[in-house]
Amino acid sequence: MLQAPRHSPVESLTPFFHPRAIAVIGASRHATHIGYRLLESLQGGRFTGRIFPVNPQATEIAGLPAFPSLKSIPGPVDLAIIAVPPSSVLAVIDDCAAKQITAAILITAGFAETGGLGISLEQQLREKVLQQGIRLIGPNCFGLMNLDPTVRLNATYTPAMPPAGRVAIASESGGLGLAVVTAAQRMNLGLSSFVSLGNHTDVTASDLLEYWEQDQATDVILLYLETLAEPQRFRQIAERAGRKKPIVVLKAGTTKAGQSAAGSHTAALATNDAAVNALFTQCGVIRANRLEEFLSLATGLSAQPVPGGRKIGILTNSGGPGVLCADSCAAEGLTLPELSKQTQSTLAAFLPPTAALRNPVDVIGFATETQHAKAVETMLKSDEIDALIILHVSVRATDNDPVAAGIAKGISTARQAVGRHKPVYLCWMAEGDLERPFTIDGETIPTYSQPETPARIISQALAYRAWTQQPTGKIPRYADADLSTAKSICAKALAERGAGWLTTEETQALLAAIQLPLVPGAVATGAEEAVTSARAIGFPVAVKLASRQILHKTEIGAVHVDLANEQTVRDAFDAIKSRLAQDHKLDAMDGVLVQPMVSGGVEVMAGMTRDPLFGPLLAFGLGGIHVEILGDVQFRVAPLTDRDAAQMVREIKGYRLLQGYRGRPPADVPALEEVLLRLSRLVEEVPEISEFDLNPIFALPKEQGCKIVDARIRIEAKNSRRFNGAPS
Amino acid sequence: MLQAPRHSPVESLTPFFHPRAIAVIGASRHATHIGYRLLESLQGGRFTGRIFPVNPQATEIAGLPAFPSLKSIPGPVDLAIIAVPPSSVLAVIDDCAAKQITAAILITAGFAETGGLGISLEQQLREKVLQQGIRLIGPNCFGLMNLDPTVRLNATYTPAMPPAGRVAIASESGGLGLAVVTAAQRMNLGLSSFVSLGNHTDVTASDLLEYWEQDQATDVILLYLETLAEPQRFRQIAERAGRKKPIVVLKAGTTKAGQSAAGSHTAALATNDAAVNALFTQCGVIRANRLEEFLSLATGLSAQPVPGGRKIGILTNSGGPGVLCADSCAAEGLTLPELSKQTQSTLAAFLPPTAALRNPVDVIGFATETQHAKAVETMLKSDEIDALIILHVSVRATDNDPVAAGIAKGISTARQAVGRHKPVYLCWMAEGDLERPFTIDGETIPTYSQPETPARIISQALAYRAWTQQPTGKIPRYADADLSTAKSICAKALAERGAGWLTTEETQALLAAIQLPLVPGAVATGAEEAVTSARAIGFPVAVKLASRQILHKTEIGAVHVDLANEQTVRDAFDAIKSRLAQDHKLDAMDGVLVQPMVSGGVEVMAGMTRDPLFGPLLAFGLGGIHVEILGDVQFRVAPLTDRDAAQMVREIKGYRLLQGYRGRPPADVPALEEVLLRLSRLVEEVPEISEFDLNPIFALPKEQGCKIVDARIRIEAKNSRRFNGAPS
Repeated sequence: MLQAPRHSPVESLTPFFHPRAIAVIGASRHATHIGYRLLESLQGGRFTGRIFPVNPQATEIAGLPAFPSLKSIPGPVDLAIIAVPPSSVLAVIDDCAAKQITAAILITAGFAETGGLGISLEQQLREKVLQQGIRLIGPNCFGLMNLDPTVRLNATYTPAMPPAGRVAIASESGGLGLAVVTAAQRMNLGLSSFVSLGNHTDVTASDLLEYWEQDQATDVILLYLETLAEPQRFRQIAERAGRKKPIVVLKAGTTKAGQSAAGSHTAALATNDAAVNALFTQCGVIRANRLEEFLSLATGLSAQPVPGGRKIGILTNSGGPGVLCADSCAAEGLTLPELSKQTQSTLAAFLPPTAALRNPVDVIGFATETQHAKAVETMLKSDEIDALIILHVSVRATDNDPVAAGIAKGISTARQAVGRHKPVYLCWMAEGDLERPFTIDGETIPTYSQPETPARIISQALAYRAWTQQPTGKIPRYADADLSTAKSICAKALAERGAGWLTTEETQALLAAIQLPLVPGAVATGAEEAVTSARAIGFPVAVKLASRQILHKTEIGAVHVDLANEQTVRDAFDAIKSRLAQDHKLDAMDGVLVQPMVSGGVEVMAGMTRDPLFGPLLAFGLGGIHVEILGDVQFRVAPLTDRDAAQMVREIKGYRLLQGYRGRPPADVPALEEVLLRLSRLVEEVPEISEFDLNPIFALPKEQGCKIVDARIRIEAKNSRRFNGAPS
Repeated sequence: MLQAPRHSPVESLTPFFHPRAIAVIGASRHATHIGYRLLESLQGGRFTGRIFPVNPQATEIAGLPAFPSLKSIPGPVDLAIIAVPPSSVLAVIDDCAAKQITAAILITAGFAETGGLGISLEQQLREKVLQQGIRLIGPNCFGLMNLDPTVRLNATYTPAMPPAGRVAIASESGGLGLAVVTAAQRMNLGLSSFVSLGNHTDVTASDLLEYWEQDQATDVILLYLETLAEPQRFRQIAERAGRKKPIVVLKAGTTKAGQSAAGSHTAALATNDAAVNALFTQCGVIRANRLEEFLSLATGLSAQPVPGGRKIGILTNSGGPGVLCADSCAAEGLTLPELSKQTQSTLAAFLPPTAALRNPVDVIGFATETQHAKAVETMLKSDEIDALIILHVSVRATDNDPVAAGIAKGISTARQAVGRHKPVYLCWMAEGDLERPFTIDGETIPTYSQPETPARIISQALAYRAWTQQPTGKIPRYADADLSTAKSICAKALAERGAGWLTTEETQALLAAIQLPLVPGAVATGAEEAVTSARAIGFPVAVKLASRQILHKTEIGAVHVDLANEQTVRDAFDAIKSRLAQDHKLDAMDGVLVQPMVSGGVEVMAGMTRDPLFGPLLAFGLGGIHVEILGDVQFRVAPLTDRDAAQMVREIKGYRLLQGYRGRPPADVPALEEVLLRLSRLVEEVPEISEFDLNPIFALPKEQGCKIVDARIRIEAKNSRRFNGAPS
């Protein structure tokens, strides 16, 4: 498909957010039609540019002069908003091109989301906008908003305009977007802009990330995603943009049921949630697990700085919520330092005698405005805490105003004295007054209804900051890895046998080519040959089935270890052979592999599967049952950086075993990281490798490296898989 | 301490909930005083009985004639509400006794929660009410409510009365209780009664459980607890009451920070959260993890039946919330069956052409009242689903009324046709209309604001029902377990050496007495004695350090296994001895234990610690690193029932290993259960055992039993520990 040359996302998306003139194609005189309501929103929002309704049957709509066609509009138009029937859309795109419009929002539904003909219509649409050099948001979307007071663009069909602020939101679901936009007012959440992605046939979440990365009006980026269509590009952009501003993603469709509900017509491309998690970890994305967390993160991250540390102060007027808050802090790895005697006596001087002073500070239910103000001020000024959580349960409705005033006064006084570096969060449990906004000297205090919410926000903020402070990972190239040999081994095997598992010899040769430490071994096809090999290797040895077809050798008793002499080797060969004969699988036996015994290490494993969307997904865990039964495994998307490999090894629960548990020597962790990094190079360069399992790998003590005891590698012709990696 | 004879909780607590006459002692004429506000609440709530303010300085308060003393009140008084200074409380209790009042609510603070003198004052208070036969709620509490329309008792100092309904709530925190009571109206949550427990010096959560178990007005019991003062009594009552009505507990103070925030003056008695979880599991308590879940469970469980199965239908007007809801269902183990072709075509007949029909059913954003009504009716009538979740995102504020009417009509029509057995939950995401109550033909539809909430409620409800359907567990007695021998071994060791670990010989004798299968072995104090033992046992053998002081033998290389001949036994003895010599710990060496090798099983462990509150807490997990590093362990509070033991073994993640993983034979699980049950008997009957660790235990294949390879048992004089089990 040919593609017209395009400007960068920042340039090409600017007309969506800063249009001087907008045409609404499909503008309608009927108040219930979207084509009318779009005009209503634009006017109701007091858009600062010009609005041109386009409708061949009308001369005036909603008080604006209407135009029969795009070309009849005098002067340039920067943005087209299209709400015509699907069958007219392609023609309208041509009209846009003729009018030199480079940005269009297509509200119309009836494309790929309806399946069948809709899919091919969307394909034609996509080709057309690419050819014409038009950037398209939608189809099947709910529109766009820019809350910048100099723009005031509400190009959606809801009249609700959220408050202006510094959070940009894109949503792959119109309804979810609507829910967020309409909730923003109640949550005192200010937005810079909002985009409903619809079917994102052209403009994607990654494009918007690039735009918002540069957007001076945006501090925090929120994405609600059901798919992650360009994971490798997303990773690249998110990693870069995330260092400038936090990116929060609510990724739905984490389960098969959810993917099916998302109406995925590409079931085979359904995203693997382990891959999503891995990718987000790698590029510093803050993942929200629930809708409530998504919105709480938005208010928390946009309105307050990240705390300088983990020491939290809690100020409450009631015990129970203070306890729940303290529990949630501890569960998130935050600490509640007991306040110093000095701070406690400062507080005691003005608080009621029954107040608790240690932290949580409980001012008790009847504390006055002044007591609240002084307590807030004292705690915010204290360098004993890095963040302050204020909890308020309303005892009487008449208390709310004075308490709110006291809190505001305390914050204001402390801010004037020591600045705004210490974040404040509020849990305001005052029935009938739940929507009270706390904006103090222009600063928004995030206000939640649940005592457990602030700890989660703080913990996510701290994790994000820790990520930004890590050095950017590097992808080592390993000049000594002979990837062309590895590639030709796979190519040859594919040519000879087609898709399937490599033989033991091929596996050995491949791993040797990329300098991975496979335990040597010889394949023997008879008992005496096995004995000869064992003698050459030196006793004790291990004897295992060599087979390209039988993968689980242990289950059928085809792994014999610690064989101390010739007779036991002979017996092992015979036992394996007769077991296969008994199972009528003798023809699956390529022979046996005779290897020296390895001992004294911790068993770990490394694996890889290719996800159709994400590409190679590498896995690391302890060997044995830990990955399969206990699920103690870490995944990362290739290519791995040195940082990714280091985290993979350290983030399994079993890592303590590698640190030298109960008197055992610490393992050679760098050697394990190197194995993972070389494997990442391998699967990047040899796409014919569709899956592998190196299990067990013995991690030896420090500076002694590691040894791969068993490996199986599966190959498959590259183009027989649906692979959608980075655009090449 | 002497205790007056008491009636059952049901009888003794009845005057709190159904008083005919109430005296308010400490009634005040000052509107800001609690003594005034209590009267205000009683009157504002339109209490149906008589109210007597008691104040020696007043003749009339809040329009009611005041009395100078309790005794001056004509006729009987059923309930005293006390709000006098702490120093006057004891005298008022005496006055109550003189007036033959048997129920008192003590609002006054300044007791144990303030520490110091308050603790002893509370102790005196407790003794006094026990002596006088008065039941006391509080001190330091916020009061009590009975919403029964024939009673209308608001004996608190908040004027807010929640709607009447079928949920009883007790709260150990006044503020939390207040938050719940005031939120009830907004949540359309009807309460039967509410109790603020305060310091629960007399009436406890367990007492209230017993009362509400019998209360005809109560269907669901909610408890907010910070402590669990009588765990064994709680267990007994909850297990019985829970079979009649669900008990939901929000247990705060799950972390040290939380316990400290709860102001526990009994830090050593701080509850162990693993024990809390174990206890709740054993007695069927539904544990809420957050405040929001606590309240959501209240509305969900009280208003709707438990679904008949896991098949969920979702009806939405918007994609994104449907996807989030579907994900949450799958994450909770619920299923979303694709609707049959027939049901889909029924729906297609009246829904818009772009509607999704498979499940979730997406009626799309512009669906009409009638479309909503018919879709709800169709899904509720379909036997393809066991529960219905309806999600609504408001596109325009003007849609809310017709959509709500459509939903109500659909529910009503379906209920009339097929009854109310299928639960319905609503997620109403309509800004500006969030508090709309859905009560349809007298039935409340639980209404939430987050699309993820209903799945959690359904899953908890199903787990609760599964618990009620299990047979009650039995505690086997094991007549062949010689507990008196076990007891005398411990008593003798205690007398001889005081607290500490049993010797290897004592351990062997003790386990043999209770018929537990310890691998036999002999302790040898010299290398040649070890060789002699090994010869008698038969090679191969294991040789391990025998020591009452050194517990981690592996770390110091003091476990030698698979010793095939005399020389290796001799070497092992020498190696252990010289390692201890090197560590200057030779005097900790009692000798070595020579044992036959055990193989062919799965390594598991059983352990016990005594919690100062809960008593013996038994643990089960896989051996090796699984318990300590991976945390794959199950706890239960003794005494174990057969059901507890069965669940402990099955609920570790590693259970798959015991089922026969990868060709290994399935393990003798009943033998493991028996070990746990015998150990439970042991620790019940021999309180001198303070801790044990049986690790490893080899679980052998089916019907071959198991073998305890290593065991260490610690003893401690019973009264040297702070132990607060069931009152004896």
